[in-house]
Amino acid sequence: MHPLAEELNQRLAPTVVGRTLSRFGHRIFFPRGIVAQSAEAKKSATTFNATVGIALTDGEPMILPTIQDHLPRLSPSETIDYAPTGGDARLRALWKDAILAKNPELEASQISLPSVVPGITAGISLAADLFVDEGDCVVFSDLCWDNYPLIFETRAQAKCAHFPLFSTSGGLNVDGIVKTLQKNAVNGKAVLLLNFPHNPTGYSPSTQEAHALAKALTALAKDGLNLVVLCDDAYFGLFYEKDVYQHSLFNLLFRAHENLLAVKIDGATKEDYVWGFRVGFVTFGAKGLTEDQFSALDQKVLGTIRTIMSSSSRVGQTLLYKELSSLVYHGIKDKYGKVLEERYRTVRSILDHRKTGLSLRPLPFNSGYFMTFELLKGNSEELRKELLRSEGIGTIALQDKFLRVAFSSIDNRDLTTLFQTIFATADRLWGA
Amino acid sequence: MHPLAEELNQRLAPTVVGRTLSRFGHRIFFPRGIVAQSAEAKKSATTFNATVGIALTDGEPMILPTIQDHLPRLSPSETIDYAPTGGDARLRALWKDAILAKNPELEASQISLPSVVPGITAGISLAADLFVDEGDCVVFSDLCWDNYPLIFETRAQAKCAHFPLFSTSGGLNVDGIVKTLQKNAVNGKAVLLLNFPHNPTGYSPSTQEAHALAKALTALAKDGLNLVVLCDDAYFGLFYEKDVYQHSLFNLLFRAHENLLAVKIDGATKEDYVWGFRVGFVTFGAKGLTEDQFSALDQKVLGTIRTIMSSSSRVGQTLLYKELSSLVYHGIKDKYGKVLEERYRTVRSILDHRKTGLSLRPLPFNSGYFMTFELLKGNSEELRKELLRSEGIGTIALQDKFLRVAFSSIDNRDLTTLFQTIFATADRLWGA
Repeated sequence: MHPLAEELNQRLAPTVVGRTLSRFGHRIFFPRGIVAQSAEAKKSATTFNATVGIALTDGEPMILPTIQDHLPRLSPSETIDYAPTGGDARLRALWKDAILAKNPELEASQISLPSVVPGITAGISLAADLFVDEGDCVVFSDLCWDNYPLIFETRAQAKCAHFPLFSTSGGLNVDGIVKTLQKNAVNGKAVLLLNFPHNPTGYSPSTQEAHALAKALTALAKDGLNLVVLCDDAYFGLFYEKDVYQHSLFNLLFRAHENLLAVKIDGATKEDYVWGFRVGFVTFGAKGLTEDQFSALDQKVLGTIRTIMSSSSRVGQTLLYKELSSLVYHGIKDKYGKVLEERYRTVRSILDHRKTGLSLRPLPFNSGYFMTFELLKGNSEELRKELLRSEGIGTIALQDKFLRVAFSSIDNRDLTTLFQTIFATADRLWGA
Repeated sequence: MHPLAEELNQRLAPTVVGRTLSRFGHRIFFPRGIVAQSAEAKKSATTFNATVGIALTDGEPMILPTIQDHLPRLSPSETIDYAPTGGDARLRALWKDAILAKNPELEASQISLPSVVPGITAGISLAADLFVDEGDCVVFSDLCWDNYPLIFETRAQAKCAHFPLFSTSGGLNVDGIVKTLQKNAVNGKAVLLLNFPHNPTGYSPSTQEAHALAKALTALAKDGLNLVVLCDDAYFGLFYEKDVYQHSLFNLLFRAHENLLAVKIDGATKEDYVWGFRVGFVTFGAKGLTEDQFSALDQKVLGTIRTIMSSSSRVGQTLLYKELSSLVYHGIKDKYGKVLEERYRTVRSILDHRKTGLSLRPLPFNSGYFMTFELLKGNSEELRKELLRSEGIGTIALQDKFLRVAFSSIDNRDLTTLFQTIFATADRLWGA
């Protein structure tokens, strides 16, 4: 074990972080090497800075003119220079402010400074690196993004356990989550991965369900379970019904208990309509973590980022910073949210009034980009192929009996045709 | 083991890839899930495409206006849409053409289509995922980028072994490389990591040394060693002396032997002056690999990318594509190369004529961004601190006795002052 890693481990040992770090998480540290020496020089090298491996002329990075032509209002430092390992300091601070504004329970001193990673996948994968060993218990919903099993089972070799997302009464299956954790925890530790608004169903918990879940998880922590809760907030903010809990579950978990580490993984990807920018964030919260402990954890995160991709896209971070700090940002974002909400209401209305496709049962949905049908008859892969082949319509088949429809991708005027064609095709294949 | 992984493993089993994949490398596959179904829909969903989790309006991704304002000549599809998992198909093809043009021995059919990863670090880390298990032998130079030990020792837990970069006669230590591999190979397998132009010394092998090294490595493979050679070509192209081998070692290794897998890791990062874009490439070559086997390996790479970051920056890939296909590209790039070469010649001349700082011995250098001094007296961390504190000059200290100077970062007019100050400071600290 490197002495720098040992020092970080000592600082984290009395906390839930120390108790839940993976073996890699224990080994990793941020070297006092080239990057650290360069950061020091950035502050103090007022004469010449010959540290970093970039090419400068007159103090600005040398940029090829075709690239500069496409970015006329940005300087080379804002586009082609390296970003710091953990992200642009201004953007990290601004994103923290944004998280605080969206989640009114949060206290600035009780959550970490968000680290920039290249997208939400990278945030989830980084959390897997830091907190999941082979054989560890990781719990997530039976219906989920197909990258979860790839990251946690295939990559991290966790023992994954699943809960049915919905209870028999059709709401969030809080009991199922708790029982799955209790049954599968290994050595007093479990990792729970929550994703709301949910992919693929488009479900978010009600305010009452969110509080019930937070209470139940806190009780597990109180009973001695060391619990890491990863909140995949990719689709945050797109809540279409009044009774939906309008904040992240992180808002209720960040200081729930000394045994509960809450990890918020979010990003500009879906929230700010910049999918291909690859700018995501990872933020931590746990009851009683001190500034010194947050800083030790930050070193672990920086070391991990360095081993995977060194840093995230500078131009993406710059453009996001400019967007978030623009005066028109909130107004425009509300307007875009309304465009998606209008599509949601249209889909609801189509479903409420349909007379065909009744063998397709919509799962509960109230938020996000998607809705999902459960097929009471037939096979969803067959339906997907038939829709693609005969109708030129693209949908996603999951687990043979679910069909995901991304209404976020379809203009409002086309939704009726889209859904009527899906209904007619299902009826044609397997009868009304 | 997932059936899709098993199928890929069967196709790769008779090859050096099958014999050198890590346990993770064996497990990984690219799921026939959301991404695969979306790719299918992209081709065939001519009516509506409701597969992907992005928000579209009139068929274009919804872009926030502040972001569009900064990218006036690019469409939202070119900037904020997701890129494919393995990268923009046009860019991959163009980069392959560029690699072929820079390395005249290569045959298009005997190397893979380059995969896009977010920077050269990500390429190295991906290779570590695919080919390095705990306890495996990984060999690299004693002087190296400090991220190598972090990736291969701390992250991958390889048994790393090092060779002195230079022989006693001052050239590339080919014998040392061979002996280190022979002595440390585990279970008939070894991974060799080569980096030319070299960080931190700025050394590249001569044509004669490059051929000698390729011959020696081929002989090891012929003797039965399964050898993965990672060519970190980050600084490729910046060769300042005529006798330097002007191509990648990949050029000599891609079909050297059935037991030798050559992996070229390169990128736009340093070659095309876009450090912060995070666009790197990974390309494979081995004697006898068939199209079907390259395609199976590509699935492994795609699966790995998906578990780490899903995809790389779209805007970076678009801007790089536009740059590489611009009519002025080669002319401008030559000009920029000449700017760096002029600095190199100035540094050479300063060293040839110096009368001070004689306790600083320059290690051999002929290429790239850097040169490195070996301190015959004193301590390089002390020298670095003194330069920063008293002179406002930033340099990098390595292993207590080496000081790296990035002349790429310093304007030609300032190099004399920079070096004279370094010499004077060393003399002041420890005597001339």
